[in-house]
Amino acid sequence: MKISGRNFIPGKVIEVKEGATTAHVRVEIAGGTILTASITNEAVADLGLKKGETVHALIKASDVMIAVGD
Amino acid sequence: MKISGRNFIPGKVIEVKEGATTAHVRVEIAGGTILTASITNEAVADLGLKKGETVHALIKASDVMIAVGD
Amino acid sequence: MKISGRNFIPGKVIEVKEGATTAHVRVEIAGGTILTASITNEAVADLGLKKGETVHALIKASDVMIAVGD
Amino acid sequence: MKISGRNFIPGKVIEVKEGATTAHVRVEIAGGTILTASITNEAVADLGLKKGETVHALIKASDVMIAVGD
Amino acid sequence: MKISGRNFIPGKVIEVKEGATTAHVRVEIAGGTILTASITNEAVADLGLKKGETVHALIKASDVMIAVGD
Amino acid sequence: MKISGRNFIPGKVIEVKEGATTAHVRVEIAGGTILTASITNEAVADLGLKKGETVHALIKASDVMIAVGD
Repeated sequence: MKISGRNFIPGKVIEVKEGATTAHVRVEIAGGTILTASITNEAVADLGLKKGETVHALIKASDVMIAVGD
Repeated sequence: MKISGRNFIPGKVIEVKEGATTAHVRVEIAGGTILTASITNEAVADLGLKKGETVHALIKASDVMIAVGD
Repeated sequence: MKISGRNFIPGKVIEVKEGATTAHVRVEIAGGTILTASITNEAVADLGLKKGETVHALIKASDVMIAVGD
Repeated sequence: MKISGRNFIPGKVIEVKEGATTAHVRVEIAGGTILTASITNEAVADLGLKKGETVHALIKASDVMIAVGD
Repeated sequence: MKISGRNFIPGKVIEVKEGATTAHVRVEIAGGTILTASITNEAVADLGLKKGETVHALIKASDVMIAVGD
Repeated sequence: MKISGRNFIPGKVIEVKEGATTAHVRVEIAGGTILTASITNEAVADLGLKKGETVHALIKASDVMIAVGD
């Protein structure tokens, strides 16, 4: 499958925390940056996400902001 | 300034391509992954974005999807 | 590949209109509803999108609003 | 009221599942595809959403990705 | 029509700038803050948007970040 | 720090409601309009958000829709 979303960042799941309906999945990517994805609990089950899993973070270009300075 | 958005990815601008109203800014992050941000031309001018600039990509957790498999 | 995004809507491309950086892709789905996707020109080229192509619209659950009444 | 969002998909609510703050509303649209909307519990109460209700899913064009292949 | 999106901000259009496919609509809201909406050219025509028009900015709660400090 | 996001709306926190993973932060802005931001519980703790705090709502231009009429 190919997706129009332009941002595919490889990484490894370091934590999956499910809420009542929404889960937070934390993914370590190159350089040690930790990403947080807020997805549905159904998606966690459907993808069988668990710690140590190799995944990609998928982000649409129109959802990426740029920051300069501290 | 501190932002509630959970994803700050450091990188370097490798290309700024302005359209009629929307610009695409490509940023190389650790591991060689290239991110694309779709932002307004005004933002490019306001932040003075140009090739070689050190920046962060800022992404809200609710805008990050997870993909598994190829 | 499996994606955490919960909304996969099958349809057929009826129009691809490229701007300077951003393209509008219109997709006819079941029932005759026409969807519009705003994606990058690079994505159009990368996916080889053209009229008549069978595709899916992919939408994150957190990007879907509900409307009632007229 | 008219909205700039380009995607209005008619459907019927088949499930409303409220979490602590976020609710998942599943809507069956033409062709049998099931959409999931992640909205606030306040919105569910405000719109009086319940199973069997006729609604529209409202999605901004910039939030729609396109996928090709399986 | 009622929408699940929680943020309706009244304002007045001060500028409409159309690109090749994407338009920027600037809206002055209470307190003098100027909002920028990036919408499709089709939406501008469909809503008949022009300078001086009274409108609302509609924003989903999951698209609002919070910033503290300068 | 400067951000490409075009919409910075000053306001005051009037309520912080944490769910299992997702919090709703309500902010009163000029004119008395109340905004709702859906952010992570981690962000609430990281920013030390509480009632009475002066903040800005940060919204990307591509996440703002325009509505006309009632």
